[in-house]
Amino acid sequence: MSDRPITPLLDRVNRPSDLKQFSDAELTRVAQELRSETISAVSETGGHLGAGLGVVELTVALHSVFNTPKDKIIWDVGHQCYPHKILTERRERIRTLRMKDGLSGFTKRSESVYDPFGAAHSSTSISAALGFAVARDLGGECAGGLGDAIAVIGDGSISAGMAFEAMNNAGHLKKRMFVILNDNEMSIAPPVGALSSYLSRLYAEEPFQDLKTAAKGAVSLLPEPFREGAKRAKDMLKGMAVGGTLFEQLGFSYLGPIDGHDMDQLLPVLRTVQVRATGPVLIHVITKKGKGYAPAEQARDKGHATAKFDVLTGKQQKSVSNAPSYTKVFAESLLKEAAADDKICAVTAAMPDGTGLTQFAERYPSRCFDVAIAEQHGVTFSAALAAGGMKPFCTMYSTFLQRGYDQVVHDVAIQRLPVRFAIDRAGLVGADGATHAGAFDVAYLANLPGFTVMAAADEAELVHMVATAVAHDEGPIAFRFPRGEGVGVEMPEKGIPLEIGKGRMIREGKGVAILSFGTRLKEVEDACEALAAKGITPTIADARFAKPLDRDLILQLANDHEALITIEEGAIGGFGSHVAQLLAEAGVFDTGLKYRSMVLPDIFIDQSSPRDMYAVAKLNAEDIEAKVLNTLGVAQIASKKA
Amino acid sequence: MSDRPITPLLDRVNRPSDLKQFSDAELTRVAQELRSETISAVSETGGHLGAGLGVVELTVALHSVFNTPKDKIIWDVGHQCYPHKILTERRERIRTLRMKDGLSGFTKRSESVYDPFGAAHSSTSISAALGFAVARDLGGECAGGLGDAIAVIGDGSISAGMAFEAMNNAGHLKKRMFVILNDNEMSIAPPVGALSSYLSRLYAEEPFQDLKTAAKGAVSLLPEPFREGAKRAKDMLKGMAVGGTLFEQLGFSYLGPIDGHDMDQLLPVLRTVQVRATGPVLIHVITKKGKGYAPAEQARDKGHATAKFDVLTGKQQKSVSNAPSYTKVFAESLLKEAAADDKICAVTAAMPDGTGLTQFAERYPSRCFDVAIAEQHGVTFSAALAAGGMKPFCTMYSTFLQRGYDQVVHDVAIQRLPVRFAIDRAGLVGADGATHAGAFDVAYLANLPGFTVMAAADEAELVHMVATAVAHDEGPIAFRFPRGEGVGVEMPEKGIPLEIGKGRMIREGKGVAILSFGTRLKEVEDACEALAAKGITPTIADARFAKPLDRDLILQLANDHEALITIEEGAIGGFGSHVAQLLAEAGVFDTGLKYRSMVLPDIFIDQSSPRDMYAVAKLNAEDIEAKVLNTLGVAQIASKKA
Repeated sequence: MSDRPITPLLDRVNRPSDLKQFSDAELTRVAQELRSETISAVSETGGHLGAGLGVVELTVALHSVFNTPKDKIIWDVGHQCYPHKILTERRERIRTLRMKDGLSGFTKRSESVYDPFGAAHSSTSISAALGFAVARDLGGECAGGLGDAIAVIGDGSISAGMAFEAMNNAGHLKKRMFVILNDNEMSIAPPVGALSSYLSRLYAEEPFQDLKTAAKGAVSLLPEPFREGAKRAKDMLKGMAVGGTLFEQLGFSYLGPIDGHDMDQLLPVLRTVQVRATGPVLIHVITKKGKGYAPAEQARDKGHATAKFDVLTGKQQKSVSNAPSYTKVFAESLLKEAAADDKICAVTAAMPDGTGLTQFAERYPSRCFDVAIAEQHGVTFSAALAAGGMKPFCTMYSTFLQRGYDQVVHDVAIQRLPVRFAIDRAGLVGADGATHAGAFDVAYLANLPGFTVMAAADEAELVHMVATAVAHDEGPIAFRFPRGEGVGVEMPEKGIPLEIGKGRMIREGKGVAILSFGTRLKEVEDACEALAAKGITPTIADARFAKPLDRDLILQLANDHEALITIEEGAIGGFGSHVAQLLAEAGVFDTGLKYRSMVLPDIFIDQSSPRDMYAVAKLNAEDIEAKVLNTLGVAQIASKKA
Repeated sequence: MSDRPITPLLDRVNRPSDLKQFSDAELTRVAQELRSETISAVSETGGHLGAGLGVVELTVALHSVFNTPKDKIIWDVGHQCYPHKILTERRERIRTLRMKDGLSGFTKRSESVYDPFGAAHSSTSISAALGFAVARDLGGECAGGLGDAIAVIGDGSISAGMAFEAMNNAGHLKKRMFVILNDNEMSIAPPVGALSSYLSRLYAEEPFQDLKTAAKGAVSLLPEPFREGAKRAKDMLKGMAVGGTLFEQLGFSYLGPIDGHDMDQLLPVLRTVQVRATGPVLIHVITKKGKGYAPAEQARDKGHATAKFDVLTGKQQKSVSNAPSYTKVFAESLLKEAAADDKICAVTAAMPDGTGLTQFAERYPSRCFDVAIAEQHGVTFSAALAAGGMKPFCTMYSTFLQRGYDQVVHDVAIQRLPVRFAIDRAGLVGADGATHAGAFDVAYLANLPGFTVMAAADEAELVHMVATAVAHDEGPIAFRFPRGEGVGVEMPEKGIPLEIGKGRMIREGKGVAILSFGTRLKEVEDACEALAAKGITPTIADARFAKPLDRDLILQLANDHEALITIEEGAIGGFGSHVAQLLAEAGVFDTGLKYRSMVLPDIFIDQSSPRDMYAVAKLNAEDIEAKVLNTLGVAQIASKKA
């Protein structure tokens, strides 16, 4: 453990109101101490570092000018909130970040009244701020009261359509509210898209050094010293009633760009808008991700996410991997396939690293599309690529594909277009917690007519599923795989397309059959080892497909066994529900079958290790073992009755 | 039937290439004839009239300048496509619009090679056009070949975040492609939002009469005669590198506004961009919805959707209603509740009429929010209203709520915020076909932890469910109801909150129990009347809740009957799947239960009357009767075996 930093001023801050005691100069020092404390904490816990370091001054400035928790600060995504948590009664727990029973790595309503609206997915903050502003004006009541609403949103997040929708609505409603555009020219990956170029031009045109021009279009809001230059800037706009920044065109007063690391710019601007604003105001703040910590500033991802590290050297404690990650297996398989088929292309929504597509983008730049945080567009864009004869791999985390659900239904499924969905982070994901769980994709895809839905049981299966998706041109196809490492199976030289709708028998046993969909298969096998010691030798099968189901296999398992148990890493409505429907319609239940379906439970599961989360979900080997015993036990009691 | 219009020029057009034979003056006459033909056809079929009339000239101009089907014209939403269908080999079938086995009321890939990308939901066209442009440049192959891609999108549709995402990506990729912004200042309802005001300002600033200034920012693209004025306009922009229109800021060349009913403006502009464009171009066209047909122009909704009508008078054939529509019952119930509770507010995404909220907006303007076509924002905005102590009714069609699915999961369900979802158009909807079916909401909502999901069995139940939603403050709650009229039951004076998770017994019978969720109840009752004649008297129950399930009721039905059949107006994964899971976990299947679950089949069902669509789905009374007989029949065979 590193030595704790010395933080005499920060030590006097138990809650945000304590910041009111400090002079502006002292607030600058508080920010420095807060930076040190943040670095120290994350060095112990790992987590999101760069984003928090970029908003240390902004965090102090906001909390010293506004009055939280009555005023609502809404951090978009929320992974920049560690400094905010330190200032808001959570410093004592900050070294439990992202751990079981610890603080969430994101903002979370249930954690603190200072987190008025939780996040983790991006681009929700402006909608939320507008909702609070409207509720305030309508006499709504909530914990802490209702004052100002302030959304803090990054330049990557603001590219999402949802943020545009919210600005469009806010500009129309004209309620007093604030959007802080935290422009660090860096989301998880370098941001893409025309808006990003536009913001860069805004900054190039009027860098914050020339603060006087920061005020154009918002003269009345400006601190006195800036007035004169601002008026001059506004004169430039004379006759250009329809010009102005994009934000002004959407009805916001625009202030900026200003230097987000300079308290002498942040404080007067925030104080002025706090006193004078009557409608929606956007403050364009330029920051540096990773600011003030050299190893983060120098990292390619600006210290976006980090393992535990040594504060002095920045060296991270990397864990030793036993097997390649599923993400890597997917990415390498797709690269191989793309080498042989020039129609294959890849689409990511601002996650080239997370989805493993970075190398694909380097090797095939014309066939790799980072559409920005824009899942809706990404899905429909993929649909049109497919309509145009390409083989698009629409590569998204399960939880983020939810953003494009209507497009999956309307543009892909109804038109039966062969979009290939590579769904990463299926199932429970660990430290990112409930907001990132890939729980619902099987349910929301497998009931779409014409869809083919697969889950890889191990990393070798994933290779074959990539090949299957390449070969499948008859309609949409999806394959899901989890976060983390594979199980260490032998890897095939190349992928062989699977027969659509056919599962595989893993082991023939008797009495009870376990039909697994996805990577619980390893747990099933472990459970069966334990059961063998008790004289129970279940049949094990890997369904491979949730749709179309392997009807023959399933009916055979049902007919040949007293009990049939399905297991999947997803919520109810998915694989098990499809199996139950098949069994019901086939009349299998008419004469009795001990059927059970093991699915994610009806709760949102907080962060922990994936293994611990699956323990909560009761989907680990010991739970499977207990389920088998319990199911057969019920049988024994029943047979005693008979 | 009205007399058919006389259309000598149009009669010479069998396909778009036939337009090439005409002079510009003749094309203007073709447009006039096409307008008459469109009016005549819709007078016989009913359907979307105003949108098509607004783009008659644009349709002729696009098809005469571009080369379809190689060039891809993508009509956003698609309800303005009737003139397009008439020009593209479908004139003979145009009088079957929206009928069973007839032409779709929207564009549809399976219908014609001239419909390269179908639609019905809004705001997908720019994504689709970009996908085709990229596929073209990557050597993709498809029916008709790949040439230019042209999205035609209305000012209402372009307000959706998805359209912004697509423009952001298109401006970045810089591919040659075209967006025609069809600005009629009128979507289904008058458009709202800051973007709409902005477009109005653009138009006010430079109305199309002064065509010379239409060119600013796109001088090189302009026809010669317009050059001079355009250069002057561009001079005005000197030094304003970050100014320009919002579209230019996003990387598009912007041309306009031009008069979309003047072929002498449309043709030269389209010909010029067709020859000269290298990157993305947006052409801002001003049109009038309902143009050229007085009854449509004068209607409040500009003839948006119409029943069959008399061409001379415009008088529509209204059908006689027997019972109030569900939409109306919902709207009136909410009005009553809102009178007694000032925390109730309503959110609609550009559908105040369709969702019945128009009167609410008039009565409580400060509590009713039309957020524009922006379901993502609308859901999260509602979540924040709830967090701020309000009682928001987020009122959307089932199929459109899909657009906000991630927000339902991430912002509402995980935070357990008491947003009330009023889900209209649940189940099959008739003439709007598969794209508008409300098939998936129960599946995608009922597996979210903490959600309460109801379906009204009749219009009186709906009144109680509105009251239930008002009273339920513990988490999110949804209630669904279908398009069309109620069944004519007696209406309660006021709504009484239902007990959460409790169904109701409709009729005690024996042998088989039918558990209905939603408005199939009437069909179940009809089926049971027919069965009674055969000596079979099923028990009938109305589940009311898909979540939480009425465990006691379900186990009682299972225990007391040989067979249990569930029925719902939704796809697999919903109500029936939850019941099956309950029965499985309770061990009911262990000893045998003739369980069946009647759900929407695994196909997308084309337009027809709702009743005919439900016949295809096999969910009508006769299908229920057959299911009961079949289920019990299977039992007889099984018992013979035993």
